[in-house]
Amino acid sequence: MSLVVIGSVAYDGVQTPHGSVDRMLGGSCTYIALSASYYTPVSIVGVVGGDFAQEDVDLLTSRNIGVEGLERVPGKTFFWKGVYSEDMNDRTTLQTDLNVFADFNPKLPETYKSAPYLFLGNIQPDLQRGVREQMKQASLVGGDTMNLWIDIARAALLETLKGWDFLLINDGEARMLSGETNLKRAAAKILEMGPKILVIKRGEYGAVLFTPHFHFMAPGYLLDRVFDPTGAGDCFAGGFMGYLASLGLDAAAAATRKQELSRAVISGSVMGSFCCEQFGVDRFRTLTRQEIDARFEEFQAFTGF
Amino acid sequence: MSLVVIGSVAYDGVQTPHGSVDRMLGGSCTYIALSASYYTPVSIVGVVGGDFAQEDVDLLTSRNIGVEGLERVPGKTFFWKGVYSEDMNDRTTLQTDLNVFADFNPKLPETYKSAPYLFLGNIQPDLQRGVREQMKQASLVGGDTMNLWIDIARAALLETLKGWDFLLINDGEARMLSGETNLKRAAAKILEMGPKILVIKRGEYGAVLFTPHFHFMAPGYLLDRVFDPTGAGDCFAGGFMGYLASLGLDAAAAATRKQELSRAVISGSVMGSFCCEQFGVDRFRTLTRQEIDARFEEFQAFTGF
Repeated sequence: MSLVVIGSVAYDGVQTPHGSVDRMLGGSCTYIALSASYYTPVSIVGVVGGDFAQEDVDLLTSRNIGVEGLERVPGKTFFWKGVYSEDMNDRTTLQTDLNVFADFNPKLPETYKSAPYLFLGNIQPDLQRGVREQMKQASLVGGDTMNLWIDIARAALLETLKGWDFLLINDGEARMLSGETNLKRAAAKILEMGPKILVIKRGEYGAVLFTPHFHFMAPGYLLDRVFDPTGAGDCFAGGFMGYLASLGLDAAAAATRKQELSRAVISGSVMGSFCCEQFGVDRFRTLTRQEIDARFEEFQAFTGF
Repeated sequence: MSLVVIGSVAYDGVQTPHGSVDRMLGGSCTYIALSASYYTPVSIVGVVGGDFAQEDVDLLTSRNIGVEGLERVPGKTFFWKGVYSEDMNDRTTLQTDLNVFADFNPKLPETYKSAPYLFLGNIQPDLQRGVREQMKQASLVGGDTMNLWIDIARAALLETLKGWDFLLINDGEARMLSGETNLKRAAAKILEMGPKILVIKRGEYGAVLFTPHFHFMAPGYLLDRVFDPTGAGDCFAGGFMGYLASLGLDAAAAATRKQELSRAVISGSVMGSFCCEQFGVDRFRTLTRQEIDARFEEFQAFTGF
């Protein structure tokens, strides 16, 4: 067990121009874990209700994901429903039922506490900090957040970030967190908040990695058809973190390794692109490591000059 | 003389969050020519009024740009005025006075007609085709267009494109021209319209080059401060075309040379980025080839993995 992932485990309903699904496995923790599982052993911490299906647990365990920390409590699993715009670049939330996730208080199994890698998915920043404090020995720790916490829990978030080695957020969140419109200036400000590695995700336009010493830019993979972008950002996170975990790098080493960090960003881009090819987590039911490696090589071909 | 550039020569007024300028040299032909002049000899075809200043002619000739085809007629030079949004991603036109440009009918000096390279800046498609027919022996021909012509002169544009080796447009124009939302599908459709090389510009997000055999993706250069983006797309075009002209490639050779085409895209990105660093064409008053080469190497550093 090397990587612990905390976050939401949910059911989603989505409508895209290609069709709709009323209820399918989702949640940030689910996507991050499935994606990272192609690179490194993963265990999750989350909460679900009595309605959580055994076949969904089975999908996780089929990828050797540890589910000891997946707590089951009375009530219903977190449910989210949304609809995507014709060009897939916007989505509107139709329904958010937090259900059992409203009282989520991550409980780390004892067997998790010695794991060297920790990814804190988007939950309330004080909860993220609590988990981090229980895993003091973890050698590479990071996560993501969202506009809600930047807005209503800014002080808690800033305190939490001090304990992180990396932060993954999207461009809108980076601008909101830093108060800077310019991406380079935004990054410089965020790198002073704690994390020495920052990845700013730009949706279809790829991602930019910043450290105090260098930056790296990856374009987004061009798909013939974006079937369902739900979870793509989380799959990026899983590929990024999973790749670094697979190398056994600690925070001090990772922050100086331009090639390894760059390849982690590409691995994230690769996993995010696969995620969009089918509804929800469906692509992970058939995806192989050979396909992942082939797409990594495609990135080299269409970015090298 | 190797590259002939046709297009608008204008005066612009711009307002950006960094300041405003009431009247400065502009126009697509001006930007394309200045940018390309760092790579290859350039001559221009355009029209200006009696108000066109000698110091602006002098700037062009200081870069060894041939101005025999810069026609001067009674009246005023084309004037455009616009204001940029706070994040620089949108601009609003405040004033467009076509003036002498309304009757622009490009007249090619005899000495231009044997040039091997032709870039047709954004003017009415029938005019572009007329110029192309006067330079039948040109071995690499392309240009750009705009939403207006895609809308009101579609048939003329499609006829014109049949005679082009490459087309440079932005993503919105590519979607409009092809009727496809998805960029990859849009590109496939456009490549069937004539040009075997297509570059889709995505503003701050870079550019994607497509041929029937491969594609290449370049991220946009991250500036600390985008001072004035006016002309950046045209400077991209100048760098792209100028680089290919500097290699002496004809259309058949260029379309199969992935590395050369990719480097042409990066050269375009480099020149577009410099353009944004000062108001209007001001950056070209001091820019050196050494700075250009250094930024090209920067692109290699932040995209290689």
